[in-house]
Amino acid sequence: MSVFDRAIELHEKAKGKISVENKINIQSTEDLSLAYSPGVAAPCIKIYEDLNKVYDYTIKGNTVAIVSDGSAVLGLGNIGASASIPVMEGKAMLFKRFAGINGFPICLNTQNSDEIVSIVKNIAPVFGGINLEDISSPRCFEIEDRLQDIGIPVFHDDQHGTAIVVLAAIMNFCRLTGRKMEDLRVVVNGAGAAGIAISKYIGKKDAHTANQQIVRDIIVCDSVGIINKDRTDLNGVKKDLLNFTNKENFGGSIFDAIRNADVFIGVSKEDLLKREDIRTMEKEPLILALANPVPEILPEEAYAGGALVVGTGRSDFPNQVNNVLAFPGIFLGAMRVRAPRITLAMKFAAAEAIASGISDLSRDHIIPPVMDESIAPRVANAVAEIYQKSLQVI
Amino acid sequence: MSVFDRAIELHEKAKGKISVENKINIQSTEDLSLAYSPGVAAPCIKIYEDLNKVYDYTIKGNTVAIVSDGSAVLGLGNIGASASIPVMEGKAMLFKRFAGINGFPICLNTQNSDEIVSIVKNIAPVFGGINLEDISSPRCFEIEDRLQDIGIPVFHDDQHGTAIVVLAAIMNFCRLTGRKMEDLRVVVNGAGAAGIAISKYIGKKDAHTANQQIVRDIIVCDSVGIINKDRTDLNGVKKDLLNFTNKENFGGSIFDAIRNADVFIGVSKEDLLKREDIRTMEKEPLILALANPVPEILPEEAYAGGALVVGTGRSDFPNQVNNVLAFPGIFLGAMRVRAPRITLAMKFAAAEAIASGISDLSRDHIIPPVMDESIAPRVANAVAEIYQKSLQVI
Repeated sequence: MSVFDRAIELHEKAKGKISVENKINIQSTEDLSLAYSPGVAAPCIKIYEDLNKVYDYTIKGNTVAIVSDGSAVLGLGNIGASASIPVMEGKAMLFKRFAGINGFPICLNTQNSDEIVSIVKNIAPVFGGINLEDISSPRCFEIEDRLQDIGIPVFHDDQHGTAIVVLAAIMNFCRLTGRKMEDLRVVVNGAGAAGIAISKYIGKKDAHTANQQIVRDIIVCDSVGIINKDRTDLNGVKKDLLNFTNKENFGGSIFDAIRNADVFIGVSKEDLLKREDIRTMEKEPLILALANPVPEILPEEAYAGGALVVGTGRSDFPNQVNNVLAFPGIFLGAMRVRAPRITLAMKFAAAEAIASGISDLSRDHIIPPVMDESIAPRVANAVAEIYQKSLQVI
Repeated sequence: MSVFDRAIELHEKAKGKISVENKINIQSTEDLSLAYSPGVAAPCIKIYEDLNKVYDYTIKGNTVAIVSDGSAVLGLGNIGASASIPVMEGKAMLFKRFAGINGFPICLNTQNSDEIVSIVKNIAPVFGGINLEDISSPRCFEIEDRLQDIGIPVFHDDQHGTAIVVLAAIMNFCRLTGRKMEDLRVVVNGAGAAGIAISKYIGKKDAHTANQQIVRDIIVCDSVGIINKDRTDLNGVKKDLLNFTNKENFGGSIFDAIRNADVFIGVSKEDLLKREDIRTMEKEPLILALANPVPEILPEEAYAGGALVVGTGRSDFPNQVNNVLAFPGIFLGAMRVRAPRITLAMKFAAAEAIASGISDLSRDHIIPPVMDESIAPRVANAVAEIYQKSLQVI
């Protein structure tokens, strides 16, 4: 049976992969009178008098909404709210499995950005964080931006989760090879949520904490080709990329772009590159071919073309780039210290925590395996620590 | 320690009374590939192709949103969304405890009816039912009405839950005394969500299935006094009551209203009546004094005035009127047969199932105890059966 047949079997049997359970037994009317009426009035009044007490008496401090409008689900595209539910339930499972956080799917019957922003603001009281998921680009950028002031972390995982793990991979590639991030030439293929975020993380000057290296030479391609100043078909977020990418204003295709590049990051489409294309790159490059389920180039083919390190999105090859390494720990850390946002500094701290989670660095081991349970707590500690440092006044 | 001190202790210790748990273990990347990417794409596609499959592959079929805007919480009033969370978590516990249903609190940062209607429609994909809770009157009527066409049951428990249990109590009072419902004179004190719903249930002609008796003589009072045609201060829902209550257009106070009445139903305020007031009623009346935590009259006092049967909202007296007897079974039954609404016929079937759940009827036992686990399945069966009968075409 294929993975898809087995997945159908599993979903049919489970009829929902998560459940809401009671943490307290109700065995008597006495129990009822404490957990519900009339006793429950007491914590209600305390919260009414001091809103911060909501963290002491309710699920808020450990609960995240997983919000999607179903407009860009996995590689499936715009399949709508109902069809996205299995993914959001899966995400909730990962929150529980790796961080002990309650995740709950909120799948929205609207793809109107104003409505989504308004709904998220209005449902926020119960949640300690909002994980935006599978919302199409460029709407995802605007929606996330407009929700940054609601007092709890709002984090679009398709952008940041992937970008954080990619950044960790590049950090470890530099450690492994002795190269410096600022000397790398990086090509990002794909200018959706993940591609844009990756480019910003590695290249945008103001996106970095003081001691952070940035990549000076980045070229981003979309389905049309290299993004440059001569193009008239660029949306706002793509135009913004030109402030810190493609300084020499190259034109051409992805094949032109990768010539002499040290790093290829694909968040695009299957079967794009052949071994001959890898041979046009700098010697011993890093190839992150993240298209799913079929990568831009298979590891074997990339190695045959001279790649030193290859990562994919798949679990059946080494170096799996999977945002489950990032988001559980990030929310855990941010919520532990009740950070109102997940700042860039916190995201970089997460990448560093993931990268340094590997002691035995090698070609086949520049990213920790997804089932490594030590990563989420490491990330959480790093994220919480840097947020608390940011609050220091002397 | 008082019940309130113990409730605070319990809430502080629990930090949330419910949790989201995984129904499937994730121990390997193989498990991950079935519950999440890439396998999860398979059920997503099936649902995209046939929306009904959402019931086969997700939590929808067994999950209810508990939606409140915090505008009328317990007896506490308008304390807002955050302060209402402990109540909604408690409600979720009751759903799980008595019906095995996943309840999840959705506490809204808005009290605008249009926004609430729009949000509920938009979050509906994940849920198989919507339990509206603690929304102030008369907004609750409009909000519930406007949500009746969204394809899943929407049920405002403060109206219907209480009314269904009150109806069950009146049914059993009639069984106990041999009186007929149509001959009773009933006074309802309180014209909020519960009072209005109770009055409609027992008195509105079109609110009944063919074989259902109705009460011909009902008087409803609000804080001003008897609701009659001469009053100019009535809102729309109170005016509607006059179509089937107070046919002789009595005026006066609650004390005038109860003279010669067979039944007093209080959903109003504490310490309203004395034993002398009960003496002005018909002989051996039914007193349902449901104000919480302090009833309109204590049982001892009511019995001293000649009451035959007394019920309250409290667990420390016999005959506790508590909507936990109704809502878990109602949702369980309605969701089992995927009813798109909870019709009046289903509500009456629920009341009959609750009433007939008592075999040893007596003064102190006209309503089943709240911890009776047999009631929710009884109610569910009755509700599901009558809905399926309604679909019969020959």
